[in-house]
Formats: sequence, C-alpha cells, structure tokens
Amino acid sequence: MSVKALIGVMGPGESATPEDNELAFELGKGIAKNGWVLLSGGRSFGVMDAALKGAADANGLTVAILPWEDDKQSSESAVIRIVTGMGSGRNIINALSSHIMIVIGMAAGTASEVSHALKAGRKVILLNQDEDTIRFFKKIGGYKITVAKTVDEALAMVKDYLIVHPVH
Amino acid sequence: MSVKALIGVMGPGESATPEDNELAFELGKGIAKNGWVLLSGGRSFGVMDAALKGAADANGLTVAILPWEDDKQSSESAVIRIVTGMGSGRNIINALSSHIMIVIGMAAGTASEVSHALKAGRKVILLNQDEDTIRFFKKIGGYKITVAKTVDEALAMVKDYLIVHPVH
Amino acid sequence: MSVKALIGVMGPGESATPEDNELAFELGKGIAKNGWVLLSGGRSFGVMDAALKGAADANGLTVAILPWEDDKQSSESAVIRIVTGMGSGRNIINALSSHIMIVIGMAAGTASEVSHALKAGRKVILLNQDEDTIRFFKKIGGYKITVAKTVDEALAMVKDYLIVHPVH
Amino acid sequence: MSVKALIGVMGPGESATPEDNELAFELGKGIAKNGWVLLSGGRSFGVMDAALKGAADANGLTVAILPWEDDKQSSESAVIRIVTGMGSGRNIINALSSHIMIVIGMAAGTASEVSHALKAGRKVILLNQDEDTIRFFKKIGGYKITVAKTVDEALAMVKDYLIVHPVH
Repeated sequence: MSVKALIGVMGPGESATPEDNELAFELGKGIAKNGWVLLSGGRSFGVMDAALKGAADANGLTVAILPWEDDKQSSESAVIRIVTGMGSGRNIINALSSHIMIVIGMAAGTASEVSHALKAGRKVILLNQDEDTIRFFKKIGGYKITVAKTVDEALAMVKDYLIVHPVH
Repeated sequence: MSVKALIGVMGPGESATPEDNELAFELGKGIAKNGWVLLSGGRSFGVMDAALKGAADANGLTVAILPWEDDKQSSESAVIRIVTGMGSGRNIINALSSHIMIVIGMAAGTASEVSHALKAGRKVILLNQDEDTIRFFKKIGGYKITVAKTVDEALAMVKDYLIVHPVH
Repeated sequence: MSVKALIGVMGPGESATPEDNELAFELGKGIAKNGWVLLSGGRSFGVMDAALKGAADANGLTVAILPWEDDKQSSESAVIRIVTGMGSGRNIINALSSHIMIVIGMAAGTASEVSHALKAGRKVILLNQDEDTIRFFKKIGGYKITVAKTVDEALAMVKDYLIVHPVH
Repeated sequence: MSVKALIGVMGPGESATPEDNELAFELGKGIAKNGWVLLSGGRSFGVMDAALKGAADANGLTVAILPWEDDKQSSESAVIRIVTGMGSGRNIINALSSHIMIVIGMAAGTASEVSHALKAGRKVILLNQDEDTIRFFKKIGGYKITVAKTVDEALAMVKDYLIVHPVH
C-alpha cells in the first residue's frame, strides 16, 4: 500500500449550520470517491461528523484526530481513530497532517486550524465563507488561501494540487 | 507568595513592524510596573522579545513558553523558561495560561493564539489592529474581543478585568 | 468501513538490535495478516521502521505518528502519516491511540510510551525483554503488563484481547 | 531579573506514601531556600502538592505545569500556573523545562517524566527509590541517573550540577 493523501475537512461543531453540514457531507463523499483519505477532528456532530459520514457513505477510509483520552465520543464514521488527549491542542495536528485543508463554516476552533495550516505553509481552500473571513485569511495567508464556491470546485482544486504536489 | 496574574502578549516574530515592537516594549513595561507577570512565546525578535525586554526594563517577572526542545534560542529577557519541544503546538499553552491576552500585530501564528484563547473563553484585547482583523475576530469571538487604541487603554482594560476576575 | 483495531508496536530507533528489528518485522507481518492496522512512531530505522516494513510486506494498512513538522523523514512503509510537530511529545499519542501495545527492545523514548500507556490504563505486551525491564513495568503496571516470549505468542495475546474488548 | 533555575520535583499523586510526601515537602523547602524555582505537575495532592507546599513554606517561587484547561484544581501553592489542557501530554514539558529533575516515589506518570527527561539528555536524581527502579533507569539512562539517599544529598547534587551547568 502506498502513502495516502490526507484531505482535511475542518469546520464548526455545535455552531455549524444545516448548509455547512450538507456541504461537508457532499465534500466527504467526493473525497472518498476520488480515493483520498478524509481527515477531521472527529466530533460526532457538525462539519466534522458530516464530512466523515459523507466519506463513509462512499465507503472511504477516514481518519479522526480526537481531542479526548479515548474514542468513546468519536463520530461513528471515523475508521482510524487517533487519540490525543490534548483537547484543542490537537488542532495543530489536524493542520500539519492534512496535505491540503478545506474549510466549511467558521468558529474559533476552526480559525485556529486554518491559522496553524497557514503558519506551516499549507494550502487552505475556503468553501462557503463570508467576505470578512476571506479578507482576513488572505491578509495573513496570501497565496496559500484559495476560495471555492462549490464542492465540485473545491474537489477540482484538490485534484490540481495533488498533480503538482503528488503524495508518494 | 500568592498566585500571579499572567498577562499574555502575543504578536508576530519576523513580520513585526517597528511600531509593533515599540508598542510591545511599552506594554511590557506597563505590565511589569503593575506587578503582573508577562507571558509570551519567547522568541528573540519581534513582539515577543520586545514585550519581554520592556518588562525586564521595569524589573518585572517574565515567562516564556518556548517552542524548542531547549532554551538556547530564547529571548534573553525571559526569566522563567518553559520548554515544550512542541513548535507552534505551544501556541495553545500561551492562550490557556494567559489570564487575559493582548495582541499587537498579526500573523498566522498570532491568529492561532487569538483563536485558541477565544475557543477557551478567554478575553482578548486587540491593540493597533486594522479593521479586517477586528471585524473577523469580533465575528468569531463576540463580546470576548475588546479593542484598545493605546497601551494605556490596554493596561486599564487589564486592570478592570482583574478587579472583576481576581487571581487568587 | 468499520473502525479499525490499531496495534501499537514500540521500540528503539538507533539502539535497536538486529534481533529487535527481526522480531519487529515478523510482528508487523503478523499484525497485517490478521487484518489489524499497525501503528508506530514512524522513524525510518529501528523497531518502528522494521515493524512498518513487515506490515507493508503483507500489504497491511499502517499508521505513523511522526515527531516532525512534515513527513520527509518518515519510514517509507508508513501509509497514513500523522504529522504532529511535537517531537517526543507525540509519544503519548502513540500510547493513547493503540488499542493494545507491543514493545520490542527498550530505550528512554520507548519507556515513556509504555509509561503513558499504563497511566492511561492500556494493556502492554512486553516481547523479548530482560528481567529488569519486566520487573519494573510489573511494579508500576501490575496486571496491565503481559510478557510474551515469541511473536506468535504476542499475536495470540492481541487476538484474545480483541475478543474480550472488540473494536467497533 | 536574570534567568531562574527550574528544579523539577516529580512523583506520584494518589499513590504517594506519607514518607514520599514528607520528603517532597522538605525538598521543596530546600529548593526555595537555595533561591531556585520549584517546578511540578501541580496536582493538589501527593508529591506534587507536598513539594509546592514546602517551597511556599520557605516563600519560594513555584511553577506548576497543569494538565487541565484551567487552574481550578491546581495545588494552592502554585504561584505561576501554566495551563496546558494536554492531560499527561504535559509530562514531557515537566521534563524539558526542568534544568535538573528529582524524583520521589514511582508510578506510571512519574516514569513517563523520568523517561522523557532521559530521552532529552537531562540529569535525573532518584530519591528514596527501590532497587528495581534504580536498576531500570540506570539501564536506560546510564550516567544521567544519580541516586540520592537523603534530601540534603539531593540538594547538594543540584548545587554541584548548577555550578558546572550555570543557568544564565
């Protein structure tokens, strides 16, 4: 088995909107259909769970980086469960482990993940974000930030990225 | 000796402007003069170093949460040196350990610290920030974000905060 | 896809003996043949690499919890690469993420992983260990420590453990 | 203010014996009387708390590296409270931040701290330890392990160490 591309999907838990969750589900499905591995923070609700469910729906492999000391509260759709016991301290691991990150919705935890990714030089795709969010992250991330308007556009960006930066 | 109030001062390293560094020095000095302990990320340049230097100038106690596996690259003005070996993974410790955080300048690492602080329910004072930054953090942090226009205003806000939330 | 059992294989890097590495390779192979996922610290030499190579040899899925800020120095046999940037701070993640841990050889980093596993209540199988090591870990770990004399015996212990503590 | 020497005192929480706690109290007092800063894991019972109490009794400065997301459960004698939110993941920070570590009593968490210290090349003084523990840590730590029979002997060893490795 060769190295797998890990595609991070980040977004809010409790404060995710129904639209965020629908997009995350579709995105997770698309990631799995492309043969990539979906990585998320592993909570059992919100964007994390919806993305994992979407990938599971397409029989994809999924990885969750869990904040707790065990996996009892994990999203049921998480196949590989990394248990960190570090609370939000695990957010940087989400950022560093994602070959590329897609962000749906916004909250403080999500913002820390985007910031850590940019700090480490990773590319981040903003999906369904408002103008304030886009402006701020472009300010601190420059060319590392790309904006996608649809799930298909985000998936196409990932595909392009992996052609130029193959995982092997 | 009773519990000390830890006042976090966060901001960019290499990308700090001369104005950021001057403000950080003044702020560090003011923190020390009030008998509070200054906490920063401990790099030897930029806002972290300038704030530590200011506190040292007023003979204050300082704490640095260092990203490396030893303290060889630490700011010389750091008195208590916490060595984490966690790189930017230590940013969440900066956020959680600060009773209140003041932010000067902005970059990806700094944004992760503000985000972690907001996620954990901590108050954050934005000093000398542009409109985009203020708008974004108010969006994700709400009432936890306060904006200060001068060093003195920031120090007054800390004083008010510590009266309502005494450290003991 | 349902939740995967993660079997941790821990042991020294540079100080691993040829015998340690041979046992680790056989163990990795056996773990993969049983359909379990092998988890290790991901270095490109010593027990970590040998175990990953063994699992890869049997076409198994493998997970590496890497200490660096990227995967450039990873063992080539690591399929899912979790990038922590936390140095030896990632050792606790190895411990918490392993449903059960098998230890071959001994060094300071390895001892930290066994200790973290015991602290978190995880079971640890000691393989090819000397009397001093067995006595110490039984002292601090009690019934959580089991001693295996051969790779086959270790694999049988994992099988028994997973029957009583199914991963689902 | 110049850099402070941080002397780590590690040992069990709940499983500490009355003798462990008495030794830790005396040791904490001696550390403070020498003008050094005592660093511990900050729990409110066992060796961590006893050492902090001893240092507080001699009006010494103390640092606690706390496992929780706030300081509500901290030992009351902790003056500088570093909040990590990382559970036992903070044990490596105890190890890396201590210029030299003294260990009283033994349990799994304590063993992880000694192991992390040895891995990072730090010196560790074992106080009041049984033969199995001494033999194991000498096996993995070699010359980095020293054995003290009394609190005074441990303090003398720290003094000698700081003469050869001055903190400045």
